[in-house]
Amino acid sequence: MSVLINFSIFPLDKGESVSQYVARAVKIIKDSGLPYKLGSMGTSIEGEWDEVMEVVTHCFEELKKDCNRVYVGITGDYRKTGSDRIAAKVKAVERKL
Amino acid sequence: MSVLINFSIFPLDKGESVSQYVARAVKIIKDSGLPYKLGSMGTSIEGEWDEVMEVVTHCFEELKKDCNRVYVGITGDYRKTGSDRIAAKVKAVERKL
Amino acid sequence: MSVLINFSIFPLDKGESVSQYVARAVKIIKDSGLPYKLGSMGTSIEGEWDEVMEVVTHCFEELKKDCNRVYVGITGDYRKTGSDRIAAKVKAVERKL
Amino acid sequence: MSVLINFSIFPLDKGESVSQYVARAVKIIKDSGLPYKLGSMGTSIEGEWDEVMEVVTHCFEELKKDCNRVYVGITGDYRKTGSDRIAAKVKAVERKL
Repeated sequence: MSVLINFSIFPLDKGESVSQYVARAVKIIKDSGLPYKLGSMGTSIEGEWDEVMEVVTHCFEELKKDCNRVYVGITGDYRKTGSDRIAAKVKAVERKL
Repeated sequence: MSVLINFSIFPLDKGESVSQYVARAVKIIKDSGLPYKLGSMGTSIEGEWDEVMEVVTHCFEELKKDCNRVYVGITGDYRKTGSDRIAAKVKAVERKL
Repeated sequence: MSVLINFSIFPLDKGESVSQYVARAVKIIKDSGLPYKLGSMGTSIEGEWDEVMEVVTHCFEELKKDCNRVYVGITGDYRKTGSDRIAAKVKAVERKL
Repeated sequence: MSVLINFSIFPLDKGESVSQYVARAVKIIKDSGLPYKLGSMGTSIEGEWDEVMEVVTHCFEELKKDCNRVYVGITGDYRKTGSDRIAAKVKAVERKL
C-alpha cells in the first residue's frame, strides 16, 4: 500500500551538463530516508503518496532557487498490495525471463 | 512564475475502458478553479506548485478509493517568467510555424 | 486500431526559450499529414505505430542537427478498437463530467 | 553520440498484475544485445536512435498480439558526446553527492 515513483528533474537554462543540479535533488531524496534507487533516467522512490510528494516538492524548491526553467517528470505506480517494490518489481520480471 | 503540468491518471485493474475513472479526476480538476485544458493524453493544469500538486493529490485519493492499481504520469514545466502559459506556449509555437 | 501519442521534444543546450526548436518539430508533424493537436505540454499525434514513429524520428533528426543535447518524451496509447481518438477520448470523458 | 531511453510498456486489459507482459518485452530487449538496465519503473536502453526504436517497436508488436490496450512510456536523452551512459550518468551524480 505504497506508491513507487520514477522522478527526474533538471533545468533548461544551465546548458547541456546538468548533473550538479540533479545531484542537489538526489541529496534531498537521500536525506529523506525513503527507499530510493538512482538510475540513469530518473530516481525511483518508494513511500506513502504524501511522503514521496513532499520529497519531490523539496527537490523542486531547491532547483527553483537559481534556475529560471525547470522540467519535472514523475511516473507513479500505486498498488494496494505489496511492499519493498523497488526490488520486488524487478525480481518479479526477472523470474519470468 | 507558475508551473504548468500535463497530468494523466488511470487504473490498471478495471479493464480497457477507463474514461469513467479519468472523468472522476477531471471533475476534481474542474472544481479546483485552476486553469486547465483537457487533452487526449492528459490534462494541462496551471498554477503555483502547491496548488497543482494539491489537485493531483485529490485525484489520486479519489481513484485509490476503489482501484487496486493506479498509474500516474506528470510532466511539469516551471518558468520564472510568463503567465497564462496553457495558451501562450501554443501560440509561441504557432507564430513560428 | 491505431496509436495515439503525446510527443514532446526540446534541447537542453539552447537556453530557457525553446519554442523555435519545438516549432521545427511541429512543422514536421504538420507536414506528415497525420491527425495532430498541439498542446502546451506536447503534441498529440494519431496513426499506425510505424507512421507516428517515423514522424518522431524525423523530428529527432531535425533537432540533432544543431543541438548537443535533446530530451524526448513519448507516451503512447494503443487500442485495438476506436478511431479519431484525439477527439473521441476527450468527448468520452466530457460526457461523464 | 547515442540515445539513452527509459522505456515502459504494459497492457490495461489484463488486470493489475502485468509482470508476465513486461517480461515478454524485457526478453526482447535482452535479446537485442543493446546495453540495458532493468528498473522498477522502466528499462534503460542505450544505442543509436534507430537501434533503440527498433527494439521498442518489437516490444510493442509483441504485446499487441494479445492485448487490446497497451500503454507505452518513453523518455529519451540524446547527447552528442559521451558513451556508456547508463553507468556514466549515475556515476556523474554520485560523485557530486
